[in-house]
Amino acid sequence: MVCSIASVMGAMGDRWGLLVMRDILFGLRRYDEFQQSSGVTNTTLADRLKTLESNGLIKRRLYQSRPARYEYLPTERGRDLTLVMQALIQVGDKWSVMDGEGAPMNLVNRHTGQPTSLSRVETESGASVKVEDLVAVPGPGADDTMRWRLETAGARRRS
Amino acid sequence: MVCSIASVMGAMGDRWGLLVMRDILFGLRRYDEFQQSSGVTNTTLADRLKTLESNGLIKRRLYQSRPARYEYLPTERGRDLTLVMQALIQVGDKWSVMDGEGAPMNLVNRHTGQPTSLSRVETESGASVKVEDLVAVPGPGADDTMRWRLETAGARRRS
Repeated sequence: MVCSIASVMGAMGDRWGLLVMRDILFGLRRYDEFQQSSGVTNTTLADRLKTLESNGLIKRRLYQSRPARYEYLPTERGRDLTLVMQALIQVGDKWSVMDGEGAPMNLVNRHTGQPTSLSRVETESGASVKVEDLVAVPGPGADDTMRWRLETAGARRRS
Repeated sequence: MVCSIASVMGAMGDRWGLLVMRDILFGLRRYDEFQQSSGVTNTTLADRLKTLESNGLIKRRLYQSRPARYEYLPTERGRDLTLVMQALIQVGDKWSVMDGEGAPMNLVNRHTGQPTSLSRVETESGASVKVEDLVAVPGPGADDTMRWRLETAGARRRS
């Protein structure tokens, strides 16, 4: 199946892979930091670091020899996932506020300190687009499943 | 642990939950449609639909009695996840193009047909923010783990 959503989630492996990727994008680097941050077990952590590395999202760097110790950094491809993290934060923060709790964190512009968010725009003109005006259409890489999915979904919405 | 990323991913359960949520947001409604779209097994699908419903992301509607048949629709809270799906699509499409494939789908403005994307802005002023200028700071709902994570990450980035 060709689907961008499935392939990006697949590249992170699972929820643990996503949480380790989150930590690396935030700036954590070392094994014990990932464990302290997410409570991930040794075996799971080792496995998800391998998955993220073999999918080109992170790279290892030796920071100590005898014994060899590595730290983990995002690759350029891995940095693209900042957008996904930001979307998850934005939704989670909205839900926290709806549930009467404060947002656990804010993403700000480091130069101005101003809160940031993701806004839905037309790529070329920059004009704002409402969520209810979004519609998915098959792209040049669509396969039969994607075309069937979007056609069926379109028919359901119109019915 | 308080983290918006973990809590939003947790609300969908796992990758299967996310794929079913994707289908429901696109407009698929029925059991056999979810199966055809993602190849999910009966047991997994039934379980993930229950998870999504008990987390307030989808609701059931009877569309046929004798035998009773239900279809599934997103709630208002569930619709918030469109932002997460859009971020995943945007990253996946970028990777498809980098890998020399076409994007499987495009999200367009239904009124103009123009491609859309997510843009990173200062919430108040609407000024564009570069990804490298983003920094995470503890929010009003931060717990000790979140404060430790962001402090450690900040120290690592400066070192």
